[in-house]
Amino acid sequence: MRSFESAIEKIKPLDEQAIDAAKERQDRLTKPVGALGRLEQIGIQLSGIARRCPPPPPYPAAVAVFAGDHGVLKEGVSPWPQEVTAQMVDNFCAGGAGVSVLADQIGAQVLVVDVGVAQTLPPRKGLRLAKVAKGSGNIAYEQGMSIDEAATCMDIGVEIANELVDQGAACLITGDMGIGNTTPSAALIAAFTGLDAVEVTGRGTGISDEVLKRKVAVVEQALSRSRSEGASTPLELLASLGGLEIAALAGFILGGSSRQVPVILDGVIAQAAALVSVGLAPLCSGYLIAGHRSKEPGSSAALRYLGKEPLLDLEMRLGEGSGACLAYPIVQAAARVLNDMATFDEAEVSTPDS
Amino acid sequence: MRSFESAIEKIKPLDEQAIDAAKERQDRLTKPVGALGRLEQIGIQLSGIARRCPPPPPYPAAVAVFAGDHGVLKEGVSPWPQEVTAQMVDNFCAGGAGVSVLADQIGAQVLVVDVGVAQTLPPRKGLRLAKVAKGSGNIAYEQGMSIDEAATCMDIGVEIANELVDQGAACLITGDMGIGNTTPSAALIAAFTGLDAVEVTGRGTGISDEVLKRKVAVVEQALSRSRSEGASTPLELLASLGGLEIAALAGFILGGSSRQVPVILDGVIAQAAALVSVGLAPLCSGYLIAGHRSKEPGSSAALRYLGKEPLLDLEMRLGEGSGACLAYPIVQAAARVLNDMATFDEAEVSTPDS
Repeated sequence: MRSFESAIEKIKPLDEQAIDAAKERQDRLTKPVGALGRLEQIGIQLSGIARRCPPPPPYPAAVAVFAGDHGVLKEGVSPWPQEVTAQMVDNFCAGGAGVSVLADQIGAQVLVVDVGVAQTLPPRKGLRLAKVAKGSGNIAYEQGMSIDEAATCMDIGVEIANELVDQGAACLITGDMGIGNTTPSAALIAAFTGLDAVEVTGRGTGISDEVLKRKVAVVEQALSRSRSEGASTPLELLASLGGLEIAALAGFILGGSSRQVPVILDGVIAQAAALVSVGLAPLCSGYLIAGHRSKEPGSSAALRYLGKEPLLDLEMRLGEGSGACLAYPIVQAAARVLNDMATFDEAEVSTPDS
Repeated sequence: MRSFESAIEKIKPLDEQAIDAAKERQDRLTKPVGALGRLEQIGIQLSGIARRCPPPPPYPAAVAVFAGDHGVLKEGVSPWPQEVTAQMVDNFCAGGAGVSVLADQIGAQVLVVDVGVAQTLPPRKGLRLAKVAKGSGNIAYEQGMSIDEAATCMDIGVEIANELVDQGAACLITGDMGIGNTTPSAALIAAFTGLDAVEVTGRGTGISDEVLKRKVAVVEQALSRSRSEGASTPLELLASLGGLEIAALAGFILGGSSRQVPVILDGVIAQAAALVSVGLAPLCSGYLIAGHRSKEPGSSAALRYLGKEPLLDLEMRLGEGSGACLAYPIVQAAARVLNDMATFDEAEVSTPDS
């Protein structure tokens, strides 16, 4: 059995008893019922994930940044040169990228995983060399990858999740790097949600109106090719429209869920991957926390489809895991509230009924 | 000259040179221009506040929780008994309240300041005894406090801000405690924004439809009394409709601004106080960061009037400083990005133009 299939088999529903205990505890803490809003909901979810209340602190977190290139870049969907993917891998390892700084602030390790960078990368501390192919296919004209490559990338994602949890990570954060990767993400989101390309395709790094028009046309072309080739299951759609790092992310999400740790989703790339993960294993949705709403329109579409409200909405569109890292302290706070706040009885505080 | 008047005199506009340097630096960091969205704006603001780029990390933060009671509670605007204010002061000092837990997570000290609790409180570590009166007047029928009491509370707020900054706080967080205090806050917000009572009055701790109706009527009555008494300047409105802890918060905001540190506003109580501060000293707006949007409708109204977008919107309505504490890591991250991210040149990463 493949690692990703075995992960899917292990994913359990959240623990209802722990959820009930957390709900009940929230109402006994020294605050009006429901006054901590969404923080209370996250605390209840963390209890269900950990199968106990109060839940253990989700500390430390670990970020995996999956990197890959995209043949579709040839269609002119981004002004950034492909070499930037490899250069940014260097920047992650050197600690100079956005996610490096934001992960450091939350005390999280960053592991960069090359599953599909076009260039051959030299070994480096903080970088896992696990290249499955030198970039994804040009989805305008061909599959992003074969079904076997997609499955292999998912296996790698699962194994990285297992490894990080084995090393002590109590929360996983999704990261990505790949020049051009908002295009396959938009295609996947359109395919899963049934929305039109124009509704889910955005400006990515900040492209002009003209480039955006071309990008929408490329997504339409990929969707039409994929439909005509009969792609329909989550795995087929992933292989047909996705990218290597998106496949690895889908596996990473499944892996974290199978290990019963919360998985904080970053923006549109991770949310596209989550559509695949939830398609393959609906129960994994319980383990997912939407870190933020990206400015990409596909992000809102994917979140709606996943039924997830994001914790943050700061008009960010960097990717890398940056939005999820920024959301992490809120998740940590949600656990701390259930652990450390006093109840009305303990603090001898009166209530409206007393 | 009173402390609050001297604070107002010291408030400077943000430094334009540092703002320009921060804008320029944001565009050289290894990310697409603007990709960190609102985080970039906060970083630019922090540079303007600190008068240098990159800005120093706003660490440590300190929370001041100003506590007071409200005569208007007699009108049945809340089901909570008045004694809860004093009981919660105990809970803050013991570390069991929401703000205690959330402040601890961000490494922030909490100082509770009694400016208007009805009960006499014994001395306690973490509690400053600075009572100006044993609760505010019943604003349905009388001034919340005299002009002199309002000024004295503001002076105390300024002095607490000075003290915390002198002790090393690089960021101030507003906190409040006072059973009934969403009623004077709603009245102040209506008076400043010109909105009707019904548009700015909310369920506070979670009151029934019937109690809400009564609360709206009480706010209307207070507004009509205040108008007939001719209250019109920020200080007159504060004394007429506010509460002692709201006045202290207004001073605290002025004090932090005069000391050139960022002040993170919590929810509707702090936002009502900020209307007074900005009314007295428009320049202080530059130092304010809206931590979150509270579920109280007055919060959205006050934020609109202040021209501030909140960092968080998590349907919280606890007060105490809880929402501002939760937002603090985002402020910290904004400073770290400008300090620690590599530029394109440093990291040798290509750009669309290169």
